[in-house]
Amino acid sequence: MGTMPFNEGDYILIDYIVKVKEDDRVIDTTIEEEAKKAGVYEEGKVYGPELVIIGEGWILKSAEEEIKKMNVGEEKTFEIPPEKAFGQRDPSKIRVVSIRDLQRRNIRPKINEIINFDGKPAIVKRIGSGRVILDFNHPLAGKTLVYTVKVVKKIEKTEDKIKELIRRRIHLIDLNKVNVTIEDHTATVLLPLDLLSYSNINLALRGIIRDIDRYIKEISAVKIIFEATFERETAEKPKKEEEKPEKPESKSASEKAATTE
Amino acid sequence: MGTMPFNEGDYILIDYIVKVKEDDRVIDTTIEEEAKKAGVYEEGKVYGPELVIIGEGWILKSAEEEIKKMNVGEEKTFEIPPEKAFGQRDPSKIRVVSIRDLQRRNIRPKINEIINFDGKPAIVKRIGSGRVILDFNHPLAGKTLVYTVKVVKKIEKTEDKIKELIRRRIHLIDLNKVNVTIEDHTATVLLPLDLLSYSNINLALRGIIRDIDRYIKEISAVKIIFEATFERETAEKPKKEEEKPEKPESKSASEKAATTE
Repeated sequence: MGTMPFNEGDYILIDYIVKVKEDDRVIDTTIEEEAKKAGVYEEGKVYGPELVIIGEGWILKSAEEEIKKMNVGEEKTFEIPPEKAFGQRDPSKIRVVSIRDLQRRNIRPKINEIINFDGKPAIVKRIGSGRVILDFNHPLAGKTLVYTVKVVKKIEKTEDKIKELIRRRIHLIDLNKVNVTIEDHTATVLLPLDLLSYSNINLALRGIIRDIDRYIKEISAVKIIFEATFERETAEKPKKEEEKPEKPESKSASEKAATTE
Repeated sequence: MGTMPFNEGDYILIDYIVKVKEDDRVIDTTIEEEAKKAGVYEEGKVYGPELVIIGEGWILKSAEEEIKKMNVGEEKTFEIPPEKAFGQRDPSKIRVVSIRDLQRRNIRPKINEIINFDGKPAIVKRIGSGRVILDFNHPLAGKTLVYTVKVVKKIEKTEDKIKELIRRRIHLIDLNKVNVTIEDHTATVLLPLDLLSYSNINLALRGIIRDIDRYIKEISAVKIIFEATFERETAEKPKKEEEKPEKPESKSASEKAATTE
């Protein structure tokens, strides 16, 4: 046996299906058809291979260890026992509380729902006469997980790593419209203008900048660029505008009163 | 008399106070102390000279005509009669409606408040037994306005015009932290990174791009840049990260279940 195919810090794209062994229930997948088949499809979620940086703990460490031994293109199914996943079930984490106690906290318990009790999530297991059984174990405690993983790709070029970090923050982005170049340890990222229709773009951009800072140490500066080009008449004379100018959104009512709009 | 100091398309910064002649009430001003003195100060509003492009109708045309005759640094007070401001009062725009009619529209009238009636704003003038008098005239109809205007500055350089268009959309911006350069009809705008804390920055940027398209015809493209630089150790070896990585905001609950967080 030689060295492992993947090492800490490697960027890989993986497709996976994660099931609970005992009931074959799918709890997570990157594959749209699998999600639909299992009845866990989420409207609006963007499915497709997911970026993992080996060693960063974005997925279970124990799953990472298995994936490190795989090759690009390989598909493998492996089990993760509870102690390497979400731990064994702890019977002492089951508590009986009075309905009155929950009422005081403005909680209306429903069977199998997760409530927040003293800042901790608990599943409502049973509701009896005046008493409720709460389970503070993680919903996946005691479960063996079955991973089916395919390593789709290894990302080698820094430009492509940056693109994947961008896609991680902006799932719907069309990476064909993103241009990344690197010169002198500075990454220049040209983003499509239509991202400005996306109201959380400021958060996404801050996240992308933070990610590049954290995960791409060979880059010491990043320039994020939005470029707009305007249709201009070829003649020398500038085109006369017909359109009414728009006032900035923040104009106050009193200012409006004194303008012609 | 020669040509007028200002022409259509000129960019000027003006300070002004607008009053209603008959009662000396201040209805609008760019000057913080004047707003405070008059009791119309608005918390959070950024006071200071306002950009006007002559001919764009951002302020009353009749006021623009007066301002065109002024020189930089000059202060002048002039009156705008109703017919050149918000028109004469039209007695036929006063209507009597029944309280029941307003109730059907879910309107609870209060004296001197503006209500929306059939999509038109109206001031509640009087509330009687079962009847309400509504005035659909503009609140400033019939009023002579007294403008006191000071032309603070004329903006000549295209770079500075772009900066002022930016400030118009992002009032709180520190223009000392904005860098605008022009080459080959392309404006490159370097914006401070802290603007990404501002949740409406996407709207502001779209507005700025639209404004440059509309008002600066000599520019045919604009690049908006956010630049981040990262602290890197000078040694060759990259610094080890202690901080826990943060998951993107959009991760679904089911995905979270299968990760170590």
